[in-house]
Amino acid sequence: MLYLMIMKDYIQIFEDFLKKEINYNAPANLYEPVKYILDSGGKRLRPLIVLYVSDLFTSNTSNATPAAAALEIFHNFTLAHDDIMDNSSMRRGKKTINSKWDNNTGILSGDVMLIISYEILNKYDDSKYVLLSKKLTETSRLVCEGQQNDMDFSLVKEVLEEDYFNMIENKTAVLIGCCYMFGGIVSDLNTKDINILYEVGKNLGIAFQLEDDLLDSFGDEAKFGKKIGGDIIEQKKTLLFIFTQAKLNGNQRVEFENIFFSDEIQEAVKINSIKTYYESSGAVDYLKNKVQEYSINAEKLINQMQIDTNKKLELIKFSEKLLNREI
Amino acid sequence: MLYLMIMKDYIQIFEDFLKKEINYNAPANLYEPVKYILDSGGKRLRPLIVLYVSDLFTSNTSNATPAAAALEIFHNFTLAHDDIMDNSSMRRGKKTINSKWDNNTGILSGDVMLIISYEILNKYDDSKYVLLSKKLTETSRLVCEGQQNDMDFSLVKEVLEEDYFNMIENKTAVLIGCCYMFGGIVSDLNTKDINILYEVGKNLGIAFQLEDDLLDSFGDEAKFGKKIGGDIIEQKKTLLFIFTQAKLNGNQRVEFENIFFSDEIQEAVKINSIKTYYESSGAVDYLKNKVQEYSINAEKLINQMQIDTNKKLELIKFSEKLLNREI
Repeated sequence: MLYLMIMKDYIQIFEDFLKKEINYNAPANLYEPVKYILDSGGKRLRPLIVLYVSDLFTSNTSNATPAAAALEIFHNFTLAHDDIMDNSSMRRGKKTINSKWDNNTGILSGDVMLIISYEILNKYDDSKYVLLSKKLTETSRLVCEGQQNDMDFSLVKEVLEEDYFNMIENKTAVLIGCCYMFGGIVSDLNTKDINILYEVGKNLGIAFQLEDDLLDSFGDEAKFGKKIGGDIIEQKKTLLFIFTQAKLNGNQRVEFENIFFSDEIQEAVKINSIKTYYESSGAVDYLKNKVQEYSINAEKLINQMQIDTNKKLELIKFSEKLLNREI
Repeated sequence: MLYLMIMKDYIQIFEDFLKKEINYNAPANLYEPVKYILDSGGKRLRPLIVLYVSDLFTSNTSNATPAAAALEIFHNFTLAHDDIMDNSSMRRGKKTINSKWDNNTGILSGDVMLIISYEILNKYDDSKYVLLSKKLTETSRLVCEGQQNDMDFSLVKEVLEEDYFNMIENKTAVLIGCCYMFGGIVSDLNTKDINILYEVGKNLGIAFQLEDDLLDSFGDEAKFGKKIGGDIIEQKKTLLFIFTQAKLNGNQRVEFENIFFSDEIQEAVKINSIKTYYESSGAVDYLKNKVQEYSINAEKLINQMQIDTNKKLELIKFSEKLLNREI
């Protein structure tokens, strides 16, 4: 459709807005790290969703740029703080804030990014401001809870599948839900459709995270952009691990856990061995089916919206591309 | 006046609200530290101001409790993060979050407190929500800037008086301004009076911080509640230091700086020596005059408000008590 720009145009619009908007200069030690992380790119998936949805429904993106920026800046706040908590030194091929500066700088510049994400919403009229900022608050709290759940998982040997889904819903999916919803809010969609968009995004967010887990172990390194097997080396209790562990009994389970939790086995050997378990347990197929399930949920939800059929089709196509990493 | 409750009643109202409101339970590792710090008391100065102002103008505090809680929770967010940045292990006679748990716990529970301070404002109707949350955002960003300025001061040997006033305005005074203003907003005062209340609080906040600096070196240990001379031992560049340093020339200045920046002189000797400098330089009198000046500013501002004369007098009396640590 003609009014739909190609993705790199959305990103350009977003980058221009961000550059103009984030023009704080003093104190330099506070704002330099903010500019640094916001300038370090990434896929810009979240603003892209907001801009796309707005463009689809209103053939306009300028109403959507502040909402898009709020969520991208919020996302970068979580990265700045997560990188401290995970003691990460690299992100997007560049040093993390805590590594380039120090933890204190990461804390305070993260804090101010959370605040700026609210501030940017000031650009809307009162009724939109109320909707957007309240949803940002709700989402933010869930994201914190998800991050805590994720950290808690590292302290135990076993995680329930239900708890895992709850964790990824909070840590990742609600923010994707928020992106779809913000696109709907700035487009003046009705409340029912706005709420459906949130659920659409949440379902896609879960599917996206499960795919991410799959790609982390079975993806193509060049395409995935990260070293394959990272989750295994970090002993992350993803659904691949949880499903496999629950399937195994007796000695088999002990053996699997011994390999997974060992710090002595050579990395490549460990990755291959655990991947074999993930495949033979049926975990890989299970995840693929789950991805399919959540993706179909999203499609069903889109079909419930009170919008033109062609817009439904466009939205489904966009969401599929998102999942297939074609965006 | 009859409708004005005594201070401990305000605090009781506030504590009851907080206990009812902060009832999050899971994940425990996220919310236990939140409850712990919010339960650790402190003077509750900020909520007390909001409740008092509301009671003064509307003979009602229930409209004010969420706004009061938002600012107290916000304040505790700053404490949780500052304690990490300052590597502090004790606060209010109890272990800090970073000391009782760890830095990661302090970061994430601080984050969620900032978010909860917005969430609590959801209790207001849209027009009040917009006013309160936008002012919270504006204030929060300034507080972050003030914290950065304060940290930056520790890296240099000399600070300009102007920069010091800017720092305490941002780090401390704007939040006190916010407390007065929130009291006015929930009381439906007119915009002009609401804005004056903000300036009243800002002036009092600056006076309060300067008094705090005085008390830290010259206060009565039992009444002040902290060890006297803490700022000197931490080599804090307060206005006492800045004024004294600027007054001294040549050898005298070198001697003063040698003592101040030495890590080898016995604590008690150092404190007494630096206090002598602060007195003889005229810094103590200078600060006392400044306190007076900002306090008079606040009084003048109150007199500009479009409110009954008796309310002006009450507000001035309350603000004086606040400054005199009688509240």
